[in-house]
Amino acid sequence: MSTDRPRIPGLGQSPDEGVSATITDALAGIALVDHHVHGPLRTAITRDEFEVLITESNEPAPAATVHSDSQVGFAIRALCAPLLGIPAHAPMDDYWDGRSRHTPNELTRILMGATHTGHWLLETGYKGDAILDPTALTAQGVGRVSEVVRLESVLESVAKGANASDLASRFTSELASRTREAVGLKSIVAYRYGFDFDPARPTEAEVTAAAGAWLRSITAGGEVKVTDPTLLRMLLWAGVDTGLPLQLHTGYGDSDVELHRCDPLLLTRWLRLIQGSGTNVLLLHCYPYHRNAGYLAQVFPHVYFDVGLAINYTGAASDLIVRESLELAPFSKVLYSSDAWGPPELHYLGATLWRRGMARALTSFVNDGLWSVDDAIRVATMTGRDNALRVYRIEGA
Amino acid sequence: MSTDRPRIPGLGQSPDEGVSATITDALAGIALVDHHVHGPLRTAITRDEFEVLITESNEPAPAATVHSDSQVGFAIRALCAPLLGIPAHAPMDDYWDGRSRHTPNELTRILMGATHTGHWLLETGYKGDAILDPTALTAQGVGRVSEVVRLESVLESVAKGANASDLASRFTSELASRTREAVGLKSIVAYRYGFDFDPARPTEAEVTAAAGAWLRSITAGGEVKVTDPTLLRMLLWAGVDTGLPLQLHTGYGDSDVELHRCDPLLLTRWLRLIQGSGTNVLLLHCYPYHRNAGYLAQVFPHVYFDVGLAINYTGAASDLIVRESLELAPFSKVLYSSDAWGPPELHYLGATLWRRGMARALTSFVNDGLWSVDDAIRVATMTGRDNALRVYRIEGA
Amino acid sequence: MSTDRPRIPGLGQSPDEGVSATITDALAGIALVDHHVHGPLRTAITRDEFEVLITESNEPAPAATVHSDSQVGFAIRALCAPLLGIPAHAPMDDYWDGRSRHTPNELTRILMGATHTGHWLLETGYKGDAILDPTALTAQGVGRVSEVVRLESVLESVAKGANASDLASRFTSELASRTREAVGLKSIVAYRYGFDFDPARPTEAEVTAAAGAWLRSITAGGEVKVTDPTLLRMLLWAGVDTGLPLQLHTGYGDSDVELHRCDPLLLTRWLRLIQGSGTNVLLLHCYPYHRNAGYLAQVFPHVYFDVGLAINYTGAASDLIVRESLELAPFSKVLYSSDAWGPPELHYLGATLWRRGMARALTSFVNDGLWSVDDAIRVATMTGRDNALRVYRIEGA
Repeated sequence: MSTDRPRIPGLGQSPDEGVSATITDALAGIALVDHHVHGPLRTAITRDEFEVLITESNEPAPAATVHSDSQVGFAIRALCAPLLGIPAHAPMDDYWDGRSRHTPNELTRILMGATHTGHWLLETGYKGDAILDPTALTAQGVGRVSEVVRLESVLESVAKGANASDLASRFTSELASRTREAVGLKSIVAYRYGFDFDPARPTEAEVTAAAGAWLRSITAGGEVKVTDPTLLRMLLWAGVDTGLPLQLHTGYGDSDVELHRCDPLLLTRWLRLIQGSGTNVLLLHCYPYHRNAGYLAQVFPHVYFDVGLAINYTGAASDLIVRESLELAPFSKVLYSSDAWGPPELHYLGATLWRRGMARALTSFVNDGLWSVDDAIRVATMTGRDNALRVYRIEGA
Repeated sequence: MSTDRPRIPGLGQSPDEGVSATITDALAGIALVDHHVHGPLRTAITRDEFEVLITESNEPAPAATVHSDSQVGFAIRALCAPLLGIPAHAPMDDYWDGRSRHTPNELTRILMGATHTGHWLLETGYKGDAILDPTALTAQGVGRVSEVVRLESVLESVAKGANASDLASRFTSELASRTREAVGLKSIVAYRYGFDFDPARPTEAEVTAAAGAWLRSITAGGEVKVTDPTLLRMLLWAGVDTGLPLQLHTGYGDSDVELHRCDPLLLTRWLRLIQGSGTNVLLLHCYPYHRNAGYLAQVFPHVYFDVGLAINYTGAASDLIVRESLELAPFSKVLYSSDAWGPPELHYLGATLWRRGMARALTSFVNDGLWSVDDAIRVATMTGRDNALRVYRIEGA
Repeated sequence: MSTDRPRIPGLGQSPDEGVSATITDALAGIALVDHHVHGPLRTAITRDEFEVLITESNEPAPAATVHSDSQVGFAIRALCAPLLGIPAHAPMDDYWDGRSRHTPNELTRILMGATHTGHWLLETGYKGDAILDPTALTAQGVGRVSEVVRLESVLESVAKGANASDLASRFTSELASRTREAVGLKSIVAYRYGFDFDPARPTEAEVTAAAGAWLRSITAGGEVKVTDPTLLRMLLWAGVDTGLPLQLHTGYGDSDVELHRCDPLLLTRWLRLIQGSGTNVLLLHCYPYHRNAGYLAQVFPHVYFDVGLAINYTGAASDLIVRESLELAPFSKVLYSSDAWGPPELHYLGATLWRRGMARALTSFVNDGLWSVDDAIRVATMTGRDNALRVYRIEGA
């Protein structure tokens, strides 16, 4: 084993060290493609802001408790601390002191640099002012960056000045312009409505009626945020029409979702309708419905999935979730993402805990005699990099 | 390691004995708060009755089979037998013989005493005649006892003599009186209807109409058992109004539930409506929806949960469920309960298997280098005792 | 440990070899009853056909990928290869070359023979022309064979010449004739509609109306495949009336199912309605709803289940699913099946991976001190053989 490459932390002293060294070395050596991620923070934050950025809760923790007494908080103290010159497992106060000695861009370069990611597919539609955009992130020198465009944001950006009958065409034009350089699209219909929508393509008349109602509501002072299911379906179908890989937020997210309405199985009829289109669908996160996603990825040729977000947030317990993602789906259909947003600790944990979970699962399959070491290394490379290169038609590091 | 304190059985000879000794000692030393439990049996039972009391089935086992050929049956033979002077793993006939030499109160003192529980929060609403009440349990000297009041039982107790328009106020008065000493409330809306109820507070007119229909049905000879969803919602909202911690049966129970209608995610809209009230909600049991409960406990500040009942009933397989309860939720939101009712074997298994599952999960997190030993001991203490002390505003042993 | 009996592959070198040798020997020695399985292929297939027969997908794999880069593909290369004189883990091209040297019946005799199955309960309703029927399989000398009859196939076979008012009685006569020698029935209502059907027995008038509509549609050139929920319910109730054990496809299957509508909990009301009938229901496969099935098997005396199909298809990851099937259900309610269809590799993997998963789970329960070795061997024998003998009233090897 070479000594100049990082080993994977979080695996303890296993009796199977021999085999695992080969597999963990291979895993550590993959220049990952993080196929769904957001930018790191642009500016310094307060300790209180940090606490709310390392949870999917939108609220402060109850009195006498902190969000960081959690798997993600413990994993930050164990794994990120040493990268910042802080002792592993130091109390969060000490971690905060040490962290505060670094500028936001230093934190980005240290923590995102340590992920050994070759290509970041950056989704830019959420609170873009607070985080680095693709150009700014590229300048940090932590890997190649491409953009994924959020459908709902594009629609909301063309509402001003649109009318009921030209909204859809304005959207299509804007989408074409916004995706000239983009490698994929993202839908948050899960957040805005749920997956229990009518799977059929909406008619022009339905879209016009829904557009009219939405625009009138905005004029009357209502929210620009689009939640009308007809408009959201219009976005999905327009996304399919582009042929670009289409990411769908699935399962775990903040308290805005109704989680049971984000079970990917609710997409079954829609997935059948778009099966012949040539467009691939990438189900993101999926927890706690990742086994359901694995089923869809097995039976539908155009369905792919990952368990991002759930990995960073479950810390030491994430290895079981990674293992559960390796059940039904062919290995050509499983991808890696961190879905990190903001604190670059989340980017680092996403990559590191994915490598750890894969190393543990693959080592056990090999030690059991059911996989060869070559099988293990090939699956690690497919999942961590090659599947994304193929589906997004991009290049690696 | 001290020798005068009990170690935790059910962990075999692990190669990680070194670290686990420290963690298991700490876990064994916690005076638990069992935040949802029922009394032990008052009188002797027959072998057939015992068989039906160690399953959630309401029926005898099919011909040529016994309920005790199950994880809970095997765990009783392995773990409870030695406490009663019976060889571990003895056949159930031998166990029954040995057990029958003890009076019900002796069994209570031996088995509940061995749980090392400091405080029992006793829910008194189910078949109260068959089990010890708080006063009688206190007299057994197995720990402090407080009461949790079942909302449906209080309503049913005021039906006689009530009319449609005064039922709600009679209920509120009775609830105030019954909770003068109580530390919490319990709802079994999951059993009586399901979680797919209208989340809004019912209007006075709706309550009066539903009350009238229910009272007329009772007068006509119908069941007193309240199943009307409007009345059940009235109880929930009245519970929230008290500010007392509110326990909800969730998930696993007997064949009266429709389990898929007890998925806690179905409470999402109701949880949002009561979020500002100051009242905390405690989701009980939750299996097989415990990952969903962990999500709710992360994103909603007023939501807590446990995996009681599922632990005793899954015996040797319970360690995975305990581990799965330590994924998304902050550790300040996870509690311990046994939900035992009747045979004190269930009280003992609840506590012992919880300690075992925690010892195994926490040891693996520490051995992996992702938690410190101090983290592990702190989380064990929060989950086993301190979270309950804080949420119920009570004292320990 | 004897050396003339097969040990179980796929368990690696465990530190618990001592205990496991006793348990794995016992498991290896059970002459299994495969209570739900289909025939092996009658004729040779192409490599492309093989790829589609080792997935539940109905489609070719996407460009640049193969279905066999999956747990089931890797398990075939690891476990089936040596039985055919091919090195373990050889690339799939080499496996195919080696496999092609054998006739279909040789493959059947080698791979199904190596399962050490005493009795196959063969369901004959799916593409019967492509696979061996009970007589032809019996002639291969790989174990006793009995038949399970698919309800939908029987109805479809009597459509020709029937009219609206005599369809039901023609079906009942044909069913009586077809089941003279059969040991059980199978329903695929999960595929044809879902479990969210009206649980009540349909009235004669409802059946006549539905029969008329279906027969008119066939006359007009429509599909013979029955999908009408009233007719499907009629079949279920007619199945219950026979008193024969009734198998239901549950959960995991191909892209024709809407998986969330195959959650067995949706059967709760129907299960209550038939509870007094004396007919037993066997929930097949159940993944990813196997915990829900375990709950139903605990609380309803007439409910049994297995995790077949999911075991072969999850290969090295199947041990966790086997373990999860040993949580709530009494061990008298859990059965073994492979649900293999076609390539006899699937028959072999079903049996071998089931033995492996049981050996691993039971060894861990014993090593933890929570089960005795005798408990483990008894549960292995119940689950692998004796429960099926009792429920189907059949004999073993």
